[in-house]
Amino acid sequence: MENESLIPVVVAGAAGKMGRETIKVIAQTEDMMLLGAVERDSQYLGQDAGEIAGCGALEVPILNDLQSVLVMATQQEIQGVMVDFTHPDSVYENTRSAIAYGVRPVVGTTGLSAEQIKDLTEFAEKASTGALIIPNFCIGVILMQQAALQAAKHFDCLEIIELHHNQKADAPSGTAIKTAQMLAEMGKTYNPPQVEETEKIPGARGCLADENIRIHSVRLPGFIAHQEMIFGAAGQIYTLRHDTTDRAAFMPGVLLSIRKVTQLKTLVYGLEKIL
Amino acid sequence: MENESLIPVVVAGAAGKMGRETIKVIAQTEDMMLLGAVERDSQYLGQDAGEIAGCGALEVPILNDLQSVLVMATQQEIQGVMVDFTHPDSVYENTRSAIAYGVRPVVGTTGLSAEQIKDLTEFAEKASTGALIIPNFCIGVILMQQAALQAAKHFDCLEIIELHHNQKADAPSGTAIKTAQMLAEMGKTYNPPQVEETEKIPGARGCLADENIRIHSVRLPGFIAHQEMIFGAAGQIYTLRHDTTDRAAFMPGVLLSIRKVTQLKTLVYGLEKIL
Amino acid sequence: MENESLIPVVVAGAAGKMGRETIKVIAQTEDMMLLGAVERDSQYLGQDAGEIAGCGALEVPILNDLQSVLVMATQQEIQGVMVDFTHPDSVYENTRSAIAYGVRPVVGTTGLSAEQIKDLTEFAEKASTGALIIPNFCIGVILMQQAALQAAKHFDCLEIIELHHNQKADAPSGTAIKTAQMLAEMGKTYNPPQVEETEKIPGARGCLADENIRIHSVRLPGFIAHQEMIFGAAGQIYTLRHDTTDRAAFMPGVLLSIRKVTQLKTLVYGLEKIL
Amino acid sequence: MENESLIPVVVAGAAGKMGRETIKVIAQTEDMMLLGAVERDSQYLGQDAGEIAGCGALEVPILNDLQSVLVMATQQEIQGVMVDFTHPDSVYENTRSAIAYGVRPVVGTTGLSAEQIKDLTEFAEKASTGALIIPNFCIGVILMQQAALQAAKHFDCLEIIELHHNQKADAPSGTAIKTAQMLAEMGKTYNPPQVEETEKIPGARGCLADENIRIHSVRLPGFIAHQEMIFGAAGQIYTLRHDTTDRAAFMPGVLLSIRKVTQLKTLVYGLEKIL
Repeated sequence: MENESLIPVVVAGAAGKMGRETIKVIAQTEDMMLLGAVERDSQYLGQDAGEIAGCGALEVPILNDLQSVLVMATQQEIQGVMVDFTHPDSVYENTRSAIAYGVRPVVGTTGLSAEQIKDLTEFAEKASTGALIIPNFCIGVILMQQAALQAAKHFDCLEIIELHHNQKADAPSGTAIKTAQMLAEMGKTYNPPQVEETEKIPGARGCLADENIRIHSVRLPGFIAHQEMIFGAAGQIYTLRHDTTDRAAFMPGVLLSIRKVTQLKTLVYGLEKIL
Repeated sequence: MENESLIPVVVAGAAGKMGRETIKVIAQTEDMMLLGAVERDSQYLGQDAGEIAGCGALEVPILNDLQSVLVMATQQEIQGVMVDFTHPDSVYENTRSAIAYGVRPVVGTTGLSAEQIKDLTEFAEKASTGALIIPNFCIGVILMQQAALQAAKHFDCLEIIELHHNQKADAPSGTAIKTAQMLAEMGKTYNPPQVEETEKIPGARGCLADENIRIHSVRLPGFIAHQEMIFGAAGQIYTLRHDTTDRAAFMPGVLLSIRKVTQLKTLVYGLEKIL
Repeated sequence: MENESLIPVVVAGAAGKMGRETIKVIAQTEDMMLLGAVERDSQYLGQDAGEIAGCGALEVPILNDLQSVLVMATQQEIQGVMVDFTHPDSVYENTRSAIAYGVRPVVGTTGLSAEQIKDLTEFAEKASTGALIIPNFCIGVILMQQAALQAAKHFDCLEIIELHHNQKADAPSGTAIKTAQMLAEMGKTYNPPQVEETEKIPGARGCLADENIRIHSVRLPGFIAHQEMIFGAAGQIYTLRHDTTDRAAFMPGVLLSIRKVTQLKTLVYGLEKIL
Repeated sequence: MENESLIPVVVAGAAGKMGRETIKVIAQTEDMMLLGAVERDSQYLGQDAGEIAGCGALEVPILNDLQSVLVMATQQEIQGVMVDFTHPDSVYENTRSAIAYGVRPVVGTTGLSAEQIKDLTEFAEKASTGALIIPNFCIGVILMQQAALQAAKHFDCLEIIELHHNQKADAPSGTAIKTAQMLAEMGKTYNPPQVEETEKIPGARGCLADENIRIHSVRLPGFIAHQEMIFGAAGQIYTLRHDTTDRAAFMPGVLLSIRKVTQLKTLVYGLEKIL
């Protein structure tokens, strides 16, 4: 493949965990090239992005200034993509800048408010620039959620168990809450009560999320990030389970997003929209 | 609900396990009524179908002759449905007769040849009569298969484990083979080899079904009918599992089929088509 | 095997679910014979115990009066065993009567108070008669509990998930609470906190049983009685799971108890003591 | 704790994966100190063992020569321990040398022949020196095997499923074969046939290990090292599962071995002996 036909990618947050993983995987991907790497932590300034990512030198120095890298991107024949894994306090500005320069943003950073997302949507529309905001890059999780929505059409009863390492402070997980919300939007109330339930020890039956969906959160060392959804009906149990054991699990979703954003003319929210 | 607005249902194979379960569930279903019950085993002749099914008298005597019951069905205001759980050697004739009398067949009996299905399809089309042939009434299994087809678009690697009681003589199960066929029809070859594999004891790696999909069959007392599909990619595992623990698992699919067939004008094959 | 060398067994509570299952399994067991069947519900009086149990006639009529059956047992060459699956209000009297007649009781009925158990223990000791009180006949559950106690010596972190049908009113299950108590008696406190946990929705982290062990109770149709114990440590997860899918699961424990009680001279509490 | 009361530990194979992990964990363990680090790969010569292990400088240089480090160990007040994670071709010599110098070996390297083990056993006995040969340091796996042996006393039917990453070339895994051997030594034949089984696709029923135990090997990306043992009986399933997700899983077993070997006077084989 000629160099000119590769998608040029800028990684913002290049020295963070997700940034490094992204740089590593772009280096191994045939139809992409790392154009620039930006990191506001100045200790990395000038170092080779590939060396920091642990995949060997890529001859792309880490810079502090996103603007200059975006300018560089505008000089490419093929329109560039910016992957943002930075911080809640910089993600909005970064995304707006990228769109302004005609560089398509793929945003994995959390923390954008509903208002900010609305604003970015309008801005992208005016600029006719594709943009993606992806709260969860894990395709397996999205597939599980989609399969759950299908199952919810035919099963009235389900509970969610999510299992994470015991360093995680909050429960339930964001993914479990989000999944329950998606199920609640199906417009039905789940788990019609059969008997009057009694908790002999409070909390035994987990927590009640939207539309009567119960979530149970397990925290143990040895776990990383896991979710199980159990649907029950007379004589049958249908279980969906996803186990994330490594950050590598997010990379197919990142690559898919980079490719898809180049075909978009508007801002799209959520990996499920582009699967 | 007035009696006249109920779907009149004829059960062929009324004294078999599935026939009895069907009669029981129709008796509890608001929009249906048991019109007739047919069983060729003459020991049940004249007995009350509800008593045989174990749900109390329904005042529907078991008869030996399907024809006379179909005639009775033609005299109803609402077009009737025949549910067939009989034998491979009678299912074709039964289904043809039902269509001839304008009674819509829902066929759960296995053993129809491709040619017979083609013939019945044409016959139903000419008669403008809905008909359903349903190899598996378990909605949970169909949902698992559909979710697997979605997953296969994004995962290249998967294996199937099916687990049944140790009275089951053949392996792998029909459902596992069928599932592998459906995945194979996606037009991709799964599980690209990473290393040259060696079986230190032959059979360790299970059997090779279509397109490089491996199936492992476990047989143990305590199991009934279970299937697990494991999709793997770097850093993640996505698992679908279905457990059937009672014949009741098939009944939502039977009821759905009875309702849907009344809206059809042609023969449809497979529960997935009407979900 | 000669008839005289068989263990003669009396079943009290013969028409109950466990009583019927016990009679069925005794009928199929080579070294035992059903000597008598007692049921206080008078509708079964005089009927054949085998017919009621669903295993064909055994020529043992169901009687209302335990005493007369115990007298019959004293006339056997081999000392008899009484299996009690009756009611909390009759179990104490039944057990005392059996010991008085030299018939060894195997008690599966719940509801004996600590004081009653103490009294029966002393009574059995004086009479030099073996007796067994067995709160849970399921050998698999006992094995899981024993394995958990071994694991607890080396793992500091564990949580329990128990899953039952949605007709079960109380949570957590008695077995889960009992298992947590057994673990608590190991003299250690589990799950040392790593972070300050926050429940975003109350109950997410389940309930706190003894010594910081968390239990999560799932209630769904399709489940019967299941328990999972998850032990976690850095880099590993060790899981024990037991699934009960049929009352047949209790029968190996009942047969083992009948055989073992004939070798005892005192009252023993709990299946784990005789495994 | 005074430095003098710490167990001095020598790590042979210091730059290998297990060697590095061992050094890291010793550095964090209160009752031990890293006395020496030996690695035959000369590129590490003179480098700080802690730096190589990734836990910060420990002021212990990596040396090439085991002998000189063993000499150093003899000069400690407390008898030293050598942990060996080297190669099959050096482990025998290393172990013999350690015993000769009165340094207790904990051997994690595979490849010792039965004869070599016999020889080392005699040599340790003559020297009254404790020694441990540990084929598997994972306490969770040993617990699972021990629990399986207990279960096998009461269950006649079981199958083993082991699941590993798809870079693993051989199947079944060594641990699965070893587990089947341990079960076979119970002196019973498992899984009495109930029906004449037919494999519609060869290999479906897995491989036959000792005493009719079947093993199924799954190979998928996303897995690391997992084993599931399923015991079945009428109405119940009892499952033991172990998941290894990180090399850290072996470290509690390494630390336990270091502590226990200091109390031994002979060579002991297998972690199960010291649990």
